[in-house]
Amino acid sequence: MLESDGDNNVQPDPVSKRHRLYFFALSALWQIGMVILYAVFTDYSAIAQARAPNAKEAGAEVDSIYPLYQDVHVMIFVGFGFLMTFLYKYGFSAVGYNFLISGFVIQWSILVNGFMDGAWDDFEANCEPLITDTGKAVNATRFCIEIGMESLVAADFNAAAVLITFGAVLGKTNPLQMIVVSILEIPFLALNENIGVIDFQAVDMGGSIFVHTFGAYFGLALSWVISNNKSVENSGNPHNKTTKSSDLFSMIGTIFLWLFWPSFNGALAPADQQYRVIINTVLALSACCVTAFAVDNLLRPHHKFDMVSIQNATLAGGVAVGTTSDLVILPWGAILIGIVAGTVSVLGYIKIQPWLEHFGLDDTCGVHNLHGMPGVIAAIGGSIAAAAAGESAYGESIGDVFGARAGENGIDAAAQARFQLAALASTLIISIGGGIVTGLIIKHPFFVYKGVKKGGGQARNYHICNFCHSSDETTFYDDAYYWEVPPSDGNE
Amino acid sequence: MLESDGDNNVQPDPVSKRHRLYFFALSALWQIGMVILYAVFTDYSAIAQARAPNAKEAGAEVDSIYPLYQDVHVMIFVGFGFLMTFLYKYGFSAVGYNFLISGFVIQWSILVNGFMDGAWDDFEANCEPLITDTGKAVNATRFCIEIGMESLVAADFNAAAVLITFGAVLGKTNPLQMIVVSILEIPFLALNENIGVIDFQAVDMGGSIFVHTFGAYFGLALSWVISNNKSVENSGNPHNKTTKSSDLFSMIGTIFLWLFWPSFNGALAPADQQYRVIINTVLALSACCVTAFAVDNLLRPHHKFDMVSIQNATLAGGVAVGTTSDLVILPWGAILIGIVAGTVSVLGYIKIQPWLEHFGLDDTCGVHNLHGMPGVIAAIGGSIAAAAAGESAYGESIGDVFGARAGENGIDAAAQARFQLAALASTLIISIGGGIVTGLIIKHPFFVYKGVKKGGGQARNYHICNFCHSSDETTFYDDAYYWEVPPSDGNE
Amino acid sequence: MLESDGDNNVQPDPVSKRHRLYFFALSALWQIGMVILYAVFTDYSAIAQARAPNAKEAGAEVDSIYPLYQDVHVMIFVGFGFLMTFLYKYGFSAVGYNFLISGFVIQWSILVNGFMDGAWDDFEANCEPLITDTGKAVNATRFCIEIGMESLVAADFNAAAVLITFGAVLGKTNPLQMIVVSILEIPFLALNENIGVIDFQAVDMGGSIFVHTFGAYFGLALSWVISNNKSVENSGNPHNKTTKSSDLFSMIGTIFLWLFWPSFNGALAPADQQYRVIINTVLALSACCVTAFAVDNLLRPHHKFDMVSIQNATLAGGVAVGTTSDLVILPWGAILIGIVAGTVSVLGYIKIQPWLEHFGLDDTCGVHNLHGMPGVIAAIGGSIAAAAAGESAYGESIGDVFGARAGENGIDAAAQARFQLAALASTLIISIGGGIVTGLIIKHPFFVYKGVKKGGGQARNYHICNFCHSSDETTFYDDAYYWEVPPSDGNE
Repeated sequence: MLESDGDNNVQPDPVSKRHRLYFFALSALWQIGMVILYAVFTDYSAIAQARAPNAKEAGAEVDSIYPLYQDVHVMIFVGFGFLMTFLYKYGFSAVGYNFLISGFVIQWSILVNGFMDGAWDDFEANCEPLITDTGKAVNATRFCIEIGMESLVAADFNAAAVLITFGAVLGKTNPLQMIVVSILEIPFLALNENIGVIDFQAVDMGGSIFVHTFGAYFGLALSWVISNNKSVENSGNPHNKTTKSSDLFSMIGTIFLWLFWPSFNGALAPADQQYRVIINTVLALSACCVTAFAVDNLLRPHHKFDMVSIQNATLAGGVAVGTTSDLVILPWGAILIGIVAGTVSVLGYIKIQPWLEHFGLDDTCGVHNLHGMPGVIAAIGGSIAAAAAGESAYGESIGDVFGARAGENGIDAAAQARFQLAALASTLIISIGGGIVTGLIIKHPFFVYKGVKKGGGQARNYHICNFCHSSDETTFYDDAYYWEVPPSDGNE
Repeated sequence: MLESDGDNNVQPDPVSKRHRLYFFALSALWQIGMVILYAVFTDYSAIAQARAPNAKEAGAEVDSIYPLYQDVHVMIFVGFGFLMTFLYKYGFSAVGYNFLISGFVIQWSILVNGFMDGAWDDFEANCEPLITDTGKAVNATRFCIEIGMESLVAADFNAAAVLITFGAVLGKTNPLQMIVVSILEIPFLALNENIGVIDFQAVDMGGSIFVHTFGAYFGLALSWVISNNKSVENSGNPHNKTTKSSDLFSMIGTIFLWLFWPSFNGALAPADQQYRVIINTVLALSACCVTAFAVDNLLRPHHKFDMVSIQNATLAGGVAVGTTSDLVILPWGAILIGIVAGTVSVLGYIKIQPWLEHFGLDDTCGVHNLHGMPGVIAAIGGSIAAAAAGESAYGESIGDVFGARAGENGIDAAAQARFQLAALASTLIISIGGGIVTGLIIKHPFFVYKGVKKGGGQARNYHICNFCHSSDETTFYDDAYYWEVPPSDGNE
Repeated sequence: MLESDGDNNVQPDPVSKRHRLYFFALSALWQIGMVILYAVFTDYSAIAQARAPNAKEAGAEVDSIYPLYQDVHVMIFVGFGFLMTFLYKYGFSAVGYNFLISGFVIQWSILVNGFMDGAWDDFEANCEPLITDTGKAVNATRFCIEIGMESLVAADFNAAAVLITFGAVLGKTNPLQMIVVSILEIPFLALNENIGVIDFQAVDMGGSIFVHTFGAYFGLALSWVISNNKSVENSGNPHNKTTKSSDLFSMIGTIFLWLFWPSFNGALAPADQQYRVIINTVLALSACCVTAFAVDNLLRPHHKFDMVSIQNATLAGGVAVGTTSDLVILPWGAILIGIVAGTVSVLGYIKIQPWLEHFGLDDTCGVHNLHGMPGVIAAIGGSIAAAAAGESAYGESIGDVFGARAGENGIDAAAQARFQLAALASTLIISIGGGIVTGLIIKHPFFVYKGVKKGGGQARNYHICNFCHSSDETTFYDDAYYWEVPPSDGNE
């Protein structure tokens, strides 16, 4: 039976206590597995080895990439983490699981990315043998995963995708389920990215296709599968709301995401492309911010701003300009993309999301509006920009920007444009497919939180009671089922 | 008639709903205008062109400026944004309008700065002609605005000035009015800066004169004009207060401003000057922080600290050292400036601001204490440092620091000192003049929020009712007139 | 007699008002002393002089160190500052005194570090004479403290140590006492660091020994002395608790500390070592984060997460990997260290801290769990890594990493390992000794807050009443005794 030990803490019965421990078992197991897999398969990248000092080169790489890496790092942990604190009873979970997922995915995706790249390379031996102090090689040249600055940036990008997915199901999953999602989503993502980048030779500097679109549609498919077609009831859950203070905490996330988006789009860009990424992304985001305010003002009841638009739609320009952020889209092109993205995203929150809910598609954070549709806009914009890319804008450097167009045997602009669309198509297919598979797994009763219905006696799956209208009967959007929660005001 | 739909949301009548839409009309119009003006008048700076790859140079500029640019960016959006959340019913507006204004000003001031610089240069043709794929020039060499890292930094500086102005009128203007202020303040600011920097050849590395002093006195003049000489009543408005939580949100802003001030002062400095900027600014701010605590402790009732001093006066050292931050003022000089600034700023909050209110000068955030007086201290300090600058401290490099003193025909130290004061004088004149003009425009009933007085029937200008003593009768310091506001505590 | 002027503000009698002013006297005196001491003893470092322009070198140093310095700066002011806001009635003090202490220590430790280094160097003349405009040297070559980027980073490291100490006594000291602690702790710290780094030639890249271990055990000794063996009552103080909102503010600090820890560990590392620092620290922290969630889930009642573990134990990996962060511990070694640190730290919060309280050792923030034990783990790990360091991992560069092993006369691995342990031993002795001395000084009635017991008439030392069970009778964990405190909710 549920017993309350205060206003916020509900005591679950022994069944649910034991069930909650499954999280420990899975995460501890995986974490110990990391030690073993890293010991066998990884090494520092050549530049970071002490044996063959490359101090100057290492220093140049740190000076150049590290500040942007840290910006991206802030986006992942502060940006996504606080953005999701808007639910007034789910702040600990939002920022806490965001932290957990990211720490988990960073380790896991370095491995998965490494193996996926190895698979595309027939696991070619690439690491130096180890040399003993007596000068003997103890280890033949072997395949290994070399860890450097780029691995860390890529790991943060992968974390972003899983966090976008998390946004779609925020408040409706438990930490055990999110560890399973993290484990399963990364291989799908790495597979899709290698197909898109290596096989289709698509460009996507800011990851709008391979990170944002992927994460969003994976999450939407996942949410659709686990929501049992009852999303309208979810959105009416009495815990699914904000307070003044939770909305302000959320703005901390928004602002840091907005600020550091140029670093996200440009962290791995070569120097002159990076310069364009910065200009294009700042302009697209600025235009998107103003547009989101304007359109929200136009369309909301009483023409009052709604925080959900300001927290999210202001960022859509960063996604929508991502794919083309290093291309010669010119400053006005960046501003135009920002206007389109801001408009579509606000429309998404006001018009499209309520409509999708009637089809059973529940999306707690509205990732479809912030990452899904803007990601598709980015992909289409990338295809158009690729079709238009020619001598006048790029001169000799066209092969630096579009690798497939380099040299005598390079493909032409139309072919590049088609490949861009192929990458979008494969992303939609793999992400939706992967989300459905993952959803079918995590909705298995083993992973679902078990508790008892208030007043009832028997242990049951709370999942079944997702949509109860009484706040006593739902575990959704509520920290108290997995956290010790202090009172709201300290009983002053 | 006003109808309440809960504790926080007041339903305005149709007149005010329609009026609120004017914001949409103006901001959407301006945003679309941006696309057109950018298409006609702007291009990437040469370094960011793909045609003529300058990868190494572009990379060096990004590595060198971008981390400082992002620090400044954080100051603008997180620093100013959260600093202003101290009003307990105005947090959404503070961080929201700060976001809106900055996104708007970044785009607008790149254009205005470009045209103003062009005007000083007789709109000399400076952009390369566009070349088609067939090798023909489709466009003669023409005047255009080249956008690079420095444009982005300058745009953020301009945003800072408008946000300082916003601080003086915080809670007393609506978003429509703030868009008008943003549109009008930037040309005044750019005009004044070109006069000061180009005509007077004044140095002002940290923008204490051209940004802080300008923004503060523009805002004070603006506030004086729109306040109808009733500022004492404003400061007694029942919404003009803080809570524990709003004061903590505000400290997020304070701390980020304090931390990144060396980047603000040094973002555009050449390398060795930048090194001095960092040392001088860190020392001035540290001394100012300790001094603000000490003086506040001395002067407050019961010798208890007041958050308003800690949130603001701790920062005054960054403003006061701005103009001289790259000069050889020596570490002890920087500390002394910090002590003076902290003392003056706390005195400003405790003694000077209440006194100014009796003259009808209302200043919600106390920008006079944080930006106005410290800016004037910086200007005077700059003049003294210029008068003292000679061979012993600067050697050969004096012309690098004070451009006007370079070469055989360079001016002498006394002349430089006079020019510094001339720049201060023109700044005070143009900012106060510009603020008065802008205030007269935005107090026109067209721009003022229209609603109805509670219990009354007729639509009226709320501006007229600014100073009503009942919280039901004022739109001031209250999010609810332009935002959907959730409850404070989620009715747990 | 105590009179209440509202819910939060207690009016102390004239005795306590006067006593509160002692803070002004000491801090103002010290701040003015800074001007004099800096004028006599400091100068810019050679690279920052305007006379001998080294623009290129200065630029390279700024580009390379400044972004990491700013990350460390964020950790000190945002990280530690907000981390300590978890006490629901002590948020202003937490973030405010953190700000004050850091601003104070930055100035003070540049001086103390400079004199301590001078003492190890027999105060050798190292500064250039000043040259007048007529070419005469007005000042013979003299000893001075040269201020550069490294001085600023070291000053922030010293601030970290004092803030860790502050964490152990959070809520139990007044600002006057904390100024005294800041003054006294820095010489002990600088002495210990010079012994460890210069005499013992110990390596400690991330300062786990000289900053974290030192600050923690200094603080624990200090807390033990001032707590009069009544720590169990402290932990039961009715103000010693959190709210949902104070816990979220605290997470802002946690996340920024976690993010920028690689910068803390690597800010002063040479380039290729810096590269390893980044990889090792990110991996250790990621593993520690996942482990802290897992172990907390295992050990807490009902297997629910507790915010105190998530806020703190997730960071222990950064401390524990600090000493070895630049060594060739390999990626799996970093992950293993993270797992050990996360486990020990959570165990510390759940099992060890309650046990220590019975010995009179009260530790408000649990710095023993976050900095103390992980610091000792780091020191032992460093000794093991030093013992294992050989040709195979380091090749020619071993002397770059372990200075004492360079050249023909270098020491061997075993000797280096012993020196590492010697540095730990001296750190424990000096920190605990220094903490006891400092505690005996600040518990003198002169420094203790004076007030009157409610209902009683006589002024008395509140220190004596630390452990009163009624919230009316204690000044502990309560802003109201030194701050004007607004209401919690604005009486909406």
